[in-house]
Amino acid sequence: MKKIFVGIDLGGTNIKFGCFDSRMKLISKTSTPTGADIGPAGVIDKMAGTIKKLLTDAGLSLEHVRSAGIGSPGPAVYKEGIIINAANIPGFKDVPICRMLNERLGKPIVLENDASVACWGEYVVGAGKGVKDMVFFTLGTGIGGGIICNGELVHGCGGNASELGHIIIYPDGRVCSCGQKGCVEAYASASATAKRATEAVEGGEKSTLKGVLEKRGEITCKDVFEHSSAGDKLAKRITDQTAESLAIVCVNMLHTTEPQRIVFAGGMIAAGEALLNRIKYFFKKIIWSLKEEPTEICFATLGEDAGIIGAAALAQYTYP
Amino acid sequence: MKKIFVGIDLGGTNIKFGCFDSRMKLISKTSTPTGADIGPAGVIDKMAGTIKKLLTDAGLSLEHVRSAGIGSPGPAVYKEGIIINAANIPGFKDVPICRMLNERLGKPIVLENDASVACWGEYVVGAGKGVKDMVFFTLGTGIGGGIICNGELVHGCGGNASELGHIIIYPDGRVCSCGQKGCVEAYASASATAKRATEAVEGGEKSTLKGVLEKRGEITCKDVFEHSSAGDKLAKRITDQTAESLAIVCVNMLHTTEPQRIVFAGGMIAAGEALLNRIKYFFKKIIWSLKEEPTEICFATLGEDAGIIGAAALAQYTYP
Repeated sequence: MKKIFVGIDLGGTNIKFGCFDSRMKLISKTSTPTGADIGPAGVIDKMAGTIKKLLTDAGLSLEHVRSAGIGSPGPAVYKEGIIINAANIPGFKDVPICRMLNERLGKPIVLENDASVACWGEYVVGAGKGVKDMVFFTLGTGIGGGIICNGELVHGCGGNASELGHIIIYPDGRVCSCGQKGCVEAYASASATAKRATEAVEGGEKSTLKGVLEKRGEITCKDVFEHSSAGDKLAKRITDQTAESLAIVCVNMLHTTEPQRIVFAGGMIAAGEALLNRIKYFFKKIIWSLKEEPTEICFATLGEDAGIIGAAALAQYTYP
Repeated sequence: MKKIFVGIDLGGTNIKFGCFDSRMKLISKTSTPTGADIGPAGVIDKMAGTIKKLLTDAGLSLEHVRSAGIGSPGPAVYKEGIIINAANIPGFKDVPICRMLNERLGKPIVLENDASVACWGEYVVGAGKGVKDMVFFTLGTGIGGGIICNGELVHGCGGNASELGHIIIYPDGRVCSCGQKGCVEAYASASATAKRATEAVEGGEKSTLKGVLEKRGEITCKDVFEHSSAGDKLAKRITDQTAESLAIVCVNMLHTTEPQRIVFAGGMIAAGEALLNRIKYFFKKIIWSLKEEPTEICFATLGEDAGIIGAAALAQYTYP
């Protein structure tokens, strides 16, 4: 009988589901609005129902399922399967989601931080395939991270390791939403990149971005990269600081867990080679001269599905 | 029959040896000048001879020895037991030290970076006992490091992980001996602390350290901490910057591998509670406000023996 692994990507707006075979080939996927207002029990009922329907539609049943994995925003006690207070999911406080979903499906369930789940997905079948040591960054509104050492996810003593967006790179720098000063997230996330550009334009600096701000009332990260590519000097300076900030963290991660591959994911990688090449350029410029480094820097390859793939792969790894 | 594990701490000036039982209780120890001028083969002959004599003097023989571990300065291909180019040991280039010592003793030999070995020693029987996730710093002429994740040493893809002294904390800061700018080693090592004080005094700043410089021609790290404790303002500013730099790296390590304990070792910890309390003070000041952190910061407890204990414990872990 086919062995199926279910991957669940729990977000504030939508929950995504995927069924995978033991080689992590996608059999079918779906998604449903989170609708957190009906409360955790209702949401978890809906999750169970959606999974059963997804299986039925694919000509399968619960009998085929070996285990399921959930990627969720933290903070959580991942080891115990309890969401403490999920960012962007109102009402999800102290929810023993693994136990609750297990009661509905009768299958073992594993819970992990969403960025670590995406990291695991890239590691198993994406950009990290074939290496044993990897570091992963998601560049979105914030910056999330994941670390793999010798083929294992790094969890830390309390399950909250790899908060890589909050590595401090400028100790007296910009204030981050976390309360620290100078976090890489305060410079190189999509929102920080847009914010730095907006501040500069509002401060009177010359830029083609001024027209964008006047017309639409805001500047997005996408705008900044587009105007940078088109030759605008201010936009170029802003995107270069984003790339340089990311390169500094890459250097620091090299000296910490020495990954063979550093993988960037998230909305910002739509900026493409222009961004990747600048990160590599600054990395090479900043890194020590003692020896040649083995670390490759690249973009993720799984796109939007990294969450469901990673969650399913983690379920398989934990309950094979 | 007793099972004995031998720990070897290979340094530029001396080689230290220790024999331990399976509970890592020290049975006997000794040391001998490295005398690298006789060449690697000669040094390794001497190592084998010293170990045999150490055993005999303790009423033991090679028969009792299960395995041996060596802590050595890098760079090296630790996994293959080859020293590539040991810092401070002239002539040790491309030396397959594990194979060479194995040929002389007939026992399995394991090689690891000296800082990682000391980290492992503290983890097994010292300040890291009882935790699964730990970060270790040695504060000496440079800053070395070690990382333990989920009970395992982090090696990295090329065996050169945990070069924690070269984490960049001030991207446009002081030039480090490694070629990078703003490494924590360039601020918070013993020599960097002494150097910053010397520069300030030579630059004309008022300080009781001026008398030291005039009398002895140099200011040591010990002087700076002594004058700081005695109330000298400049010395206090310098030692505070050392403590703050270390606290920044502690925050960054918390967000990376989330250690339960961060352990400081090396000559500088002779500065005592005054230093430890300031590191803790700055850590608390800098760290985010999102949640309480589980990380304890403390000093190492094994002193000079950490190297031989760690090497023996690593031998036992690898060849039990």
